[in-house]
Amino acid sequence: MALIVQKYGGTSVKDLDRIRAVADRIAASHRAGDQVVVVVSARGGVTNRLIADAKALHPEPDDRELDVLLSIGEQETIALATIALHALGVPAVSRTGGQAGIFTDSVHTKARITEIRGGDVREQLEAGKVVIVAGFQGVDGHGFTTTLGRGGSDLSAIALAAALKADLCQIYTDVDGVYTADPRIVPDAKKIPEIIYEEMLELASLGSKVMQSRAVEFANKYNVPFEVRSSFNNNPGTIVKAETSTLEDVLVRGVACDKNQTKVVVSDIPDQPGAAAKVFRSLAEAKVNVDMIVQNVGRQGIANLTFTVPADDAYRADRAVNECLAKLGAGSVSRTDRIAKVSIVGVGMQSHSGVASLMFSTLAEHGINIQMISTSEIKISVAISLDQADDAVRVLHSAFELNK
Amino acid sequence: MALIVQKYGGTSVKDLDRIRAVADRIAASHRAGDQVVVVVSARGGVTNRLIADAKALHPEPDDRELDVLLSIGEQETIALATIALHALGVPAVSRTGGQAGIFTDSVHTKARITEIRGGDVREQLEAGKVVIVAGFQGVDGHGFTTTLGRGGSDLSAIALAAALKADLCQIYTDVDGVYTADPRIVPDAKKIPEIIYEEMLELASLGSKVMQSRAVEFANKYNVPFEVRSSFNNNPGTIVKAETSTLEDVLVRGVACDKNQTKVVVSDIPDQPGAAAKVFRSLAEAKVNVDMIVQNVGRQGIANLTFTVPADDAYRADRAVNECLAKLGAGSVSRTDRIAKVSIVGVGMQSHSGVASLMFSTLAEHGINIQMISTSEIKISVAISLDQADDAVRVLHSAFELNK
Repeated sequence: MALIVQKYGGTSVKDLDRIRAVADRIAASHRAGDQVVVVVSARGGVTNRLIADAKALHPEPDDRELDVLLSIGEQETIALATIALHALGVPAVSRTGGQAGIFTDSVHTKARITEIRGGDVREQLEAGKVVIVAGFQGVDGHGFTTTLGRGGSDLSAIALAAALKADLCQIYTDVDGVYTADPRIVPDAKKIPEIIYEEMLELASLGSKVMQSRAVEFANKYNVPFEVRSSFNNNPGTIVKAETSTLEDVLVRGVACDKNQTKVVVSDIPDQPGAAAKVFRSLAEAKVNVDMIVQNVGRQGIANLTFTVPADDAYRADRAVNECLAKLGAGSVSRTDRIAKVSIVGVGMQSHSGVASLMFSTLAEHGINIQMISTSEIKISVAISLDQADDAVRVLHSAFELNK
Repeated sequence: MALIVQKYGGTSVKDLDRIRAVADRIAASHRAGDQVVVVVSARGGVTNRLIADAKALHPEPDDRELDVLLSIGEQETIALATIALHALGVPAVSRTGGQAGIFTDSVHTKARITEIRGGDVREQLEAGKVVIVAGFQGVDGHGFTTTLGRGGSDLSAIALAAALKADLCQIYTDVDGVYTADPRIVPDAKKIPEIIYEEMLELASLGSKVMQSRAVEFANKYNVPFEVRSSFNNNPGTIVKAETSTLEDVLVRGVACDKNQTKVVVSDIPDQPGAAAKVFRSLAEAKVNVDMIVQNVGRQGIANLTFTVPADDAYRADRAVNECLAKLGAGSVSRTDRIAKVSIVGVGMQSHSGVASLMFSTLAEHGINIQMISTSEIKISVAISLDQADDAVRVLHSAFELNK
């Protein structure tokens, strides 16, 4: 008898038919003799509708009240899923995040988990019940409901799996698992059977939409192996864990692509201590997430700064830099939209040379111009023109033999 | 500075525009210097949609899970109303029923209030904030959310007003107050400026849709005066309290009509101890609400029983009685649909004779046949044909000079 934590996302519980299908799946695990804890998200679209209502009333709704509002999405799903299980004759009970003992700080809308006590979840499991827990939410020291931010339900599931010392944690979503590249771009992309946390983290932050990086970080920190799989079929998914058996053999695990980037070039700023820092401080104050950064020092102590930002932040970035330059009394800004960031990720590249060289020469052979490069121990990213992004993903996927 | 409890029903908070209008009204009270506690219902239609979803998954959804589900309706409204107040620059904070210290027993979907501690509502008021409380819900000894049944938000408001020793309790709804008769039937019906609890209770249980009787009972028990008024205009409403200044002058306060009745006649049952009891026990087991009852003993120890039930219960009543008669081995059942119950209500009739006589002669003069009669100290009800119901209301309204 295993203790399994299953998490179902918004697409998987979108309507009553999907909730029935999820109940069937949970019932199968329960009947196989396992103890099952289920974490559910709000029904697809509900959270966005609630946010839109709040913003229609106030451009910047109070975070505490937003949490009171947003937490109802998951509360609806736990009740409906529990009722659907009862219809199948499966004993089940729902718990809010707070009732499942998920304690957080009081930073509403992006609370951090401080402790997981598990509430009476273990008792309910011992009594033979499936326990359906509201994801995305917790409770703070005042007893007020908090939410964990985007992707918070994945975090709830992994944190509960850690607290309950679950044997297995399954993240059910609308994709089959993690692929070597986006199958819509690369038709012969392959599902990756096993991947380590660090690679998953890089893929998550590089544009792969499977999971938010926060949940993966938590899994890494507390060493919670989990499986990403589809709630629409019974295919095995991708196991994410600390080590994989194929670790030594694989140079590159996958190719990721983020098509939502804008490049900003700040030219002719004085090459003096603190000038670049001032630019980035004003970007931080404007809450712009800066991604890749390159700094060149040109002739006569004049520097150029180049960086990418998410396309949504482009206007704010532009304004923030212009205000900063006005204070510095020097420099100019130019923006290039339609930029893509293409990355290769693999823990194997730590111990192999020639990976960067193969990446750059492959792109060059196909006439793809590299505008910026950034690297970490286990990934190399390049900024290129958006028009060439799909081509780049395909030729890199092929060059690193990911279809084999 | 007064402490006011205001309650807004589902129609009053149906959409974002209506929530904005309610916020304007609350803001006006706050700016006038009053301390304001607001109890809100779920947005109109939300509770029914949630119940329909639950029943689509299970014909008899678990009551505890139903409460988890239904309570989100009010939780949505408290957050949205609070955010709307912020947009007007009014400091405000939301509280769930449990957070406002509304404690109940654990009888889910029809919990009874056991204690109201008020949570930190007083502190928030002292800090200058409007407190928006979720109606219809409380929390039981396990910390689980309960709901109070239909009309529960009225009860929440009156109970909070009692616990906080409020100076005023205003029940905002979609009608201007309590009328001497339904203005759609009697165009010259008059709004009643003041009415006593007992009369309001009778009107509530006799088909007037303004308020559920439970909240009025609570107000009566704890002597909480309240005002029923419209959230769509600024007209004064109806004050409901223990005594009215006009008590001695008014014989009949109003005419009520319930058009949703079926008459059931059980003929030829043995007139022996327990036969009628058996009939009514089977009706109770079938959860049929029996209303007016008449029993005649005929010749040779054979009795007839006549009673009315809500039309929705007619089929179940018929089946229950038939099963019971099969066991008794005697009797037969016949049903008359399209029955109305028309009632006159007034505490003044306790001390005046001739009220019943005037009622019956008025109906007779207009050719309206009385099929059944039932009376209490402050009301007389008659069952008549549905076709004559509106006529009956009009001629009684006029005979008792309620338009004056």
